[in-house]
Amino acid sequence: MKICVIGLGYVGLPLLFSLTKKFNVTGFDISKKKIDQLQNNADYTGEVSNKKLKKINFNVTNKKSELKNFDVYIVCVPTPVFKNKNPNLNFIKQSSKIVGNAIKGSKLKPVIVLESTVYPGCSEEICIPIIEKYSNLKLNKEFYFGYSPERINPGISKHKLNNTTKIISSSEKTSLKKLKKIYRSITKKIYVAQNIKTAEAAKVIENIQRDLNIALMNELSMIFNRIDINTKDVLKAAATKWNFSNYEPGLVGGHCIGVDPYYMSYLTKKIGLNKNNMILAGRKTNEYMNNFIIKNLFRLIRLKGMKLKKSKILILGYTFKENCNDVRNSKILEIFKQLKNKVDKVDLFDPIARNDQELIYFKKNILRKLDYKKKYNAVILAVKHDYFIKMNVKKILSLCDNNKLFFDLKGVFDKSYSVFRL
Amino acid sequence: MKICVIGLGYVGLPLLFSLTKKFNVTGFDISKKKIDQLQNNADYTGEVSNKKLKKINFNVTNKKSELKNFDVYIVCVPTPVFKNKNPNLNFIKQSSKIVGNAIKGSKLKPVIVLESTVYPGCSEEICIPIIEKYSNLKLNKEFYFGYSPERINPGISKHKLNNTTKIISSSEKTSLKKLKKIYRSITKKIYVAQNIKTAEAAKVIENIQRDLNIALMNELSMIFNRIDINTKDVLKAAATKWNFSNYEPGLVGGHCIGVDPYYMSYLTKKIGLNKNNMILAGRKTNEYMNNFIIKNLFRLIRLKGMKLKKSKILILGYTFKENCNDVRNSKILEIFKQLKNKVDKVDLFDPIARNDQELIYFKKNILRKLDYKKKYNAVILAVKHDYFIKMNVKKILSLCDNNKLFFDLKGVFDKSYSVFRL
Repeated sequence: MKICVIGLGYVGLPLLFSLTKKFNVTGFDISKKKIDQLQNNADYTGEVSNKKLKKINFNVTNKKSELKNFDVYIVCVPTPVFKNKNPNLNFIKQSSKIVGNAIKGSKLKPVIVLESTVYPGCSEEICIPIIEKYSNLKLNKEFYFGYSPERINPGISKHKLNNTTKIISSSEKTSLKKLKKIYRSITKKIYVAQNIKTAEAAKVIENIQRDLNIALMNELSMIFNRIDINTKDVLKAAATKWNFSNYEPGLVGGHCIGVDPYYMSYLTKKIGLNKNNMILAGRKTNEYMNNFIIKNLFRLIRLKGMKLKKSKILILGYTFKENCNDVRNSKILEIFKQLKNKVDKVDLFDPIARNDQELIYFKKNILRKLDYKKKYNAVILAVKHDYFIKMNVKKILSLCDNNKLFFDLKGVFDKSYSVFRL
Repeated sequence: MKICVIGLGYVGLPLLFSLTKKFNVTGFDISKKKIDQLQNNADYTGEVSNKKLKKINFNVTNKKSELKNFDVYIVCVPTPVFKNKNPNLNFIKQSSKIVGNAIKGSKLKPVIVLESTVYPGCSEEICIPIIEKYSNLKLNKEFYFGYSPERINPGISKHKLNNTTKIISSSEKTSLKKLKKIYRSITKKIYVAQNIKTAEAAKVIENIQRDLNIALMNELSMIFNRIDINTKDVLKAAATKWNFSNYEPGLVGGHCIGVDPYYMSYLTKKIGLNKNNMILAGRKTNEYMNNFIIKNLFRLIRLKGMKLKKSKILILGYTFKENCNDVRNSKILEIFKQLKNKVDKVDLFDPIARNDQELIYFKKNILRKLDYKKKYNAVILAVKHDYFIKMNVKKILSLCDNNKLFFDLKGVFDKSYSVFRL
């Protein structure tokens, strides 16, 4: 069975590496740069070390002409939103076209599987018609379509492909068997959904639920800050009830949790359901958190008698998530932008952030290492990287001036050390 | 140590029974009727059988004059909302006055403990000043105040007082020791919160989280109904992710989950925080669910060519929660009211509902038992009582006419049997 993985990012790349153990697999990405890096054994996602990568025997290409004659195509492309928050389905459409062209004339009855997060119905509405158009083949006669949502968690070593349940679904039974075989080589935990739409829905609601619950925690955190009780203390007490769900307040950036709700709200608008106040209520609150943090920063700076325009601020951590090198849609970089013209200086430091093209704008302000002789008027610990957890809090505090304006957003250290935490 | 439990409802009564095993306890309720019933060994909450009750040696009164000289007073009174959704603190105020009068002149340094759900800060703002006023005693000198939120779950036999963690908090340390001793006699799991406000917050957010998450499920259910996928199927698939939180759609009635969010939103308004869109978004969606169900009922009745005005409907289950006899704030009774004048007839049947004074309005429509010779144009199974689960679905279907309009709101039976489920 020859498999082709389309899209080699945080989802496609680990999938490629995992499938390579048992199958003849080729990875495809339109980015020549990515392919070059991989061929030089560099994993830009930071999940696999160069050393390990050298031991993996994989095959990658950016040439569409090399995509012919595969039995299975697994599509792992991004599903972001436009600035107006509408789903940007361009990657989905583009990859459907690429696959459509690739399977044209194929007699292999290929199976195309989508792993990207979409709204329920998207596979059938968007992908399948495009594939049919460019391949000139008929669904369930000359090719099959499946949906198996990715559940990749960059930065979390506890939950990887091999120990996470994989949902699979297909337009037809025999192709489902093929998918079972493929995905069973990765994880023993396979769950067959009733149909593609159900599988699509299952994935997108996971992230909607997370977004909403973090939003609730953020809202509570704003209330508790005002009435002067500690959010972590409250949550710890509440968690002693057997059915309390553990979430914590925080900035929701990245390209999943903060984006997926818009896919669902796009669908609800499309079908004329206007009662979707829950899904977007979460977004509204989470989008407000930057302002809440900045407001408190400015309030405390002024309270200490400092001039905003003269203050120097250090931000520790700016990836979208702990222990992950990805800076896309990082809320902390947004905070930086909001602060930049209002204060004298903002320095950024992150020991693991990927040196991405998205960082060009911030380049001048990024520190390669911390200079403990410098004093800042405020220090914001924004991301719970293991690197920071292992740091001595005294060392972090030594970067503050006498006012000790240390913002420990995620409550990494004991509450006595910081003036603000969510 | 002499203990007095004030308020003998779903919270106070099991507490009284539990404490009676180790302490000299008196239960107080202002309702003479309740006291009479208890003295005749009838438990109106339906949690303890007459037979068991006979074996418990307890002492109850409705005479305020008998409330003198106790070491500890535990207040378990309702905290409902007014029609305008503002907190109705009358029971809290009334009981604070009763306790204040009772401890007047006491040299025992009594501890007053509140178990009712309130907004954080309520104990200190409302209860303590009233107690000080009527007792003429000073807090932390002549009496102490503690907060220990109830976590009673009527109808759920798995989680009872003795296996649920009890949060305790107090205005002062020595009284905390007393509370530990008392509550340890009930459960081994004691959690000491940092202060009263933290304990108050921990309790109210448990229910807010639940309300919000059920609201999300309700919203998703409305979407999935429209795009014709099964909510249960989607949730089952999503639940295969390790961090998915399990909630299900449903009607949120009763006097906790549907009420407590208003306590928090009252606080946020009071402190001038207007960003509390999450808490009330949940309420809005959950309050809409009646309409959603009725809309679908009417749609299907009309679709089958029936006249609304001539249709006869049967509702199975009308307590606010499964396996619980409590009908207060039942959403199903609201549905009944909404249906009553629009259709020919609505019959109600619930095998375990308490014959409450709140039911007078519905009396004529309540069936004592089901008559399987009758045929209804639609049957709504509204509450997941064990009684219904154990019933043969064919028997329920035999109550429907040929159109088989069976609404299985909670998805008790296989989806093939019903035309609608949340």
